[in-house]
Amino acid sequence: MSDVTQPLTDLTPAELQDYLGRQRAAYDALKERGLTLDLTRGKPSAAQLALADRLLDLPEGFKDADGVDVRNYGGLNGLREIREMFADLLWVEPDQVIAGGNSSLTMMHDTLVMCLLHGAVDSERPWGREETVKFICPVPGYDRHFTMLASYGIEMIPVPINADGPDATAIAALVKDDPAIKGMWIVPTYANPSGTTISEDVAATLVAMPTAAPDFKIFWDNAYAFHHLTEDEAKSVDILSVAAAAGNPNRPIMFASTSKISYAGSGVAFLAAAKDNVAWWLRHYQYASIGPDKVNQLRHIQFFGSAQGVRDHMLKHREILAPKFAAVDAALTAALDGLGVATWSKPTGGYFVNLDVLDGTASRVVALAKEAGIVLTPAGASFPHGHDPRDRNIRLAPSFPVLADVETAMAGVATCVGLAAAEKLAARHTASASTPEGE
Amino acid sequence: MSDVTQPLTDLTPAELQDYLGRQRAAYDALKERGLTLDLTRGKPSAAQLALADRLLDLPEGFKDADGVDVRNYGGLNGLREIREMFADLLWVEPDQVIAGGNSSLTMMHDTLVMCLLHGAVDSERPWGREETVKFICPVPGYDRHFTMLASYGIEMIPVPINADGPDATAIAALVKDDPAIKGMWIVPTYANPSGTTISEDVAATLVAMPTAAPDFKIFWDNAYAFHHLTEDEAKSVDILSVAAAAGNPNRPIMFASTSKISYAGSGVAFLAAAKDNVAWWLRHYQYASIGPDKVNQLRHIQFFGSAQGVRDHMLKHREILAPKFAAVDAALTAALDGLGVATWSKPTGGYFVNLDVLDGTASRVVALAKEAGIVLTPAGASFPHGHDPRDRNIRLAPSFPVLADVETAMAGVATCVGLAAAEKLAARHTASASTPEGE
Repeated sequence: MSDVTQPLTDLTPAELQDYLGRQRAAYDALKERGLTLDLTRGKPSAAQLALADRLLDLPEGFKDADGVDVRNYGGLNGLREIREMFADLLWVEPDQVIAGGNSSLTMMHDTLVMCLLHGAVDSERPWGREETVKFICPVPGYDRHFTMLASYGIEMIPVPINADGPDATAIAALVKDDPAIKGMWIVPTYANPSGTTISEDVAATLVAMPTAAPDFKIFWDNAYAFHHLTEDEAKSVDILSVAAAAGNPNRPIMFASTSKISYAGSGVAFLAAAKDNVAWWLRHYQYASIGPDKVNQLRHIQFFGSAQGVRDHMLKHREILAPKFAAVDAALTAALDGLGVATWSKPTGGYFVNLDVLDGTASRVVALAKEAGIVLTPAGASFPHGHDPRDRNIRLAPSFPVLADVETAMAGVATCVGLAAAEKLAARHTASASTPEGE
Repeated sequence: MSDVTQPLTDLTPAELQDYLGRQRAAYDALKERGLTLDLTRGKPSAAQLALADRLLDLPEGFKDADGVDVRNYGGLNGLREIREMFADLLWVEPDQVIAGGNSSLTMMHDTLVMCLLHGAVDSERPWGREETVKFICPVPGYDRHFTMLASYGIEMIPVPINADGPDATAIAALVKDDPAIKGMWIVPTYANPSGTTISEDVAATLVAMPTAAPDFKIFWDNAYAFHHLTEDEAKSVDILSVAAAAGNPNRPIMFASTSKISYAGSGVAFLAAAKDNVAWWLRHYQYASIGPDKVNQLRHIQFFGSAQGVRDHMLKHREILAPKFAAVDAALTAALDGLGVATWSKPTGGYFVNLDVLDGTASRVVALAKEAGIVLTPAGASFPHGHDPRDRNIRLAPSFPVLADVETAMAGVATCVGLAAAEKLAARHTASASTPEGE
């Protein structure tokens, strides 16, 4: 794609024009192809979903191991066996786990609503009665986390994510003095979209740090706990134990689901937290539900068989996903390596590649791609209110399309990245050339 | 059971003592039997659940008629076919219907939370920002409606239910001048527990009456819309059309589910409302969910086949339920007819018999029954805060036990009703006998 291998900023104006011309030609050729490809959302592909199609024939029978008729009402905290299975996987105790409905996002939302309308287990009053409520939002992060907060007018304070997780020093300094900061989001394992996994040290700091709010909560969204792409499997921090040891057992509330393990819309979601938090949650949730879909929980118990069954199943996902992530890296490397206009993550798990392009060109890249029939997540989506102050971040989601489409789409994206960068740099040349001397 | 057939108040003190003695003996014999029977909740029986067991083998395939892969994310308002099927059944338009998860209670709760935190579609501000929020609560009513309101500190104004539905004159007088009254509950068809069905006239009054609150909402919980016990099938009022005609299209929000049609914990719930309300609901709910369990929706589409399939299926429920309701009536009639100490409903649909006993004896009846191994819903449960001012109302739920157990349990309940009444009347005799003349 690219025969330039040095930083574009090192090119002479003529060389840059030459590169720009070739990128324009490549882009025009791309548009000619009339593609319709979608890299917007972290959705499993049909091949991944098919791995779980035995679910369509389950459950066998309608009673669980305890003799519960799963077809009837009741059992607000979910079936024992599925709680035990995922307690094992999440390194918590079964009585710290609630097995819910089809969506961990819904459980997060329910938890936030409980905090707003009732107050957390350790709140002095409902969060909704505070003048202001603020959340720490590690960036780049999951857009749905941020839009949920925005919908309730909660102020978002962006804090950068480092290689070992959110910047704990910056966070500790913020929460120390501001009682309006009531919580924060973390995707601890293979974060969306950065791919980073939080270290033991950072996690320990976050659960131990003094907070001005007595009821500070960490929404620990472990969506990708088992979603490894390599043999080097990240182990999630045992956050409930670490928090308890730090004297703040009620600070973290963990969320997980089988949405990207079994079926995306028809899986089982989980909340895990200290026993007091679990009791608090169930005390409020009893007014909203008589119980989860236990037939679907039994279906999952029978499908996986055991915690090891879940781990084994994830290897099959990896076989499908890993080549797509390799294709993303290959396409970006082929076109952009050494040009100094893009960096990207090489995640070892999760669902996303984090692409940072030349400052001020992310929106242009997304627009160019769209015009060529390649839909990307809107630029800035990984930031509160969709605002990336440097306009450089693009979230790539290669899971849903088949491999050949990922390859095609990513070659196209790389062309757009190079074109947008060349446009930007060429405009700088023009601007500086037309600027009268002395100004 | 009873050889007395005249009102107990007409008995001489000696005759009453005789009746009381025989009731005590009958009660002692009841306790001897060591029963463990439960008439507390409106749960379907195993035989009813078994009617839907083909669901365990469904769905066939994983795409709906529109080609949607139901295993993946998306489709916040639910699958088209199931919305069309239940739109037909609920006399609404498909675009007025949202097909959700496994619980209409959860959809009611979500709706209330949206009103509290965001405000209804026609609110000036979120309900949670009002000094006071009040709801009209027809009594006797569904305990979960009331406990939900109580959990948010919403004041409840009880209004009696007549044979044609809630007392609309009383309600209209209340809502006319008090802007804090933001809504009301109605179970329009075969109400829980009264069994009454709201008339066209009452419904028309409720959707047309002037309300001081511009955003007054009727939570129209049509839980038993299709749950007929006789050939005389009640037709639910077409409330969305009537409200639209009255110029208040956004006043009613309807809820329904298949919880007592297919499986109680694993059915599909529905919300139906004017298009603006539907858009309002989805606009807020997008932050809480990526979509419902569409696999389960497809399962239900295939199981029922059509709206007529649902109606046909309900006839099978009727065959199982009608004898149980007949047994309740027979037991109460045999023991209590003519005694003037109890009246009870003879519902033509729904899940409950409403039993009103001698004032001041409901709690005693429930306690006596419990001691004899027959668990009833706590006295007063059908009133806000569990407080029945006359302590006379008992909700009987005969659906869950097998027929023979219903017969046994109800004979026991009738004994307890007679005993508690005789105790009360005998105590009055004693009290008046010991009262010095002239006072």
